[in-house]
Amino acid sequence: MEYALAQASAAAERGEVPVGAVVVDSAGSLVAASGNRVEELNDPTAHAEMLAIRKAAGMSGSLRLVGYSLYVTLEPCAMCAQAISLARIKRVYFGASDEKSGAVENGVRLYNDPSCHHIPEVYGGINAAKAKVLLRDFFRVRR
Amino acid sequence: MEYALAQASAAAERGEVPVGAVVVDSAGSLVAASGNRVEELNDPTAHAEMLAIRKAAGMSGSLRLVGYSLYVTLEPCAMCAQAISLARIKRVYFGASDEKSGAVENGVRLYNDPSCHHIPEVYGGINAAKAKVLLRDFFRVRR
Repeated sequence: MEYALAQASAAAERGEVPVGAVVVDSAGSLVAASGNRVEELNDPTAHAEMLAIRKAAGMSGSLRLVGYSLYVTLEPCAMCAQAISLARIKRVYFGASDEKSGAVENGVRLYNDPSCHHIPEVYGGINAAKAKVLLRDFFRVRR
Repeated sequence: MEYALAQASAAAERGEVPVGAVVVDSAGSLVAASGNRVEELNDPTAHAEMLAIRKAAGMSGSLRLVGYSLYVTLEPCAMCAQAISLARIKRVYFGASDEKSGAVENGVRLYNDPSCHHIPEVYGGINAAKAKVLLRDFFRVRR
């Protein structure tokens, strides 16, 4: 999660909402990492998790990241939560809860829905305070 | 929708689940089109809608596709439905319902949830029979 936080911090320096994500394989080795790059790529889907999952699938050569874990500094939205499920990621560790746009423990609670065909293990609140400070400081300057 | 169906048909010929999507601007001009390219790109997020939205944002130079419409041959999943919302697409026209993985009129019904901050107009069942035949024929050969 420390490395995901570093990705989030780097995103803030680029003027992006500070969210970072890291994917590790079943042996715990780093496979992919990314910060949010929505503005840089002019791509509304370029959330940190999406970029990290796409990189990890490319690195692994497989569509299914069986046994992999994803660390992300903010609770995933519905897009990212569904992408995690599609990629068959085994465990999700997230930092801050996102009461506004989260879809794991907030909003549609995607993994609680019977339409979700692969449900990862979820561990929330990991280093949440640091993730929140990054987000708060970012929006304090801008709003 | 005819052009989205052509994208779906081309996807089937590439060995992909036959889904196609098209994005048009507020004047009705074609901006982007794609079929599903999950296998080709080895990317579990490469659904037709995602690729079409990413292309359309690139073409328009804006993160927000205000006034745009998306046509897709199958009801979007939660990932794609949320991406449509993030991109601020105004209208979604879809073909076949997806009882298994859809997230618009099935599953989590994302646009009915108060956590969804941009809700497009949705028109389902457009040329649904043709979309269903493509999917049925594709899976009949493979299963």
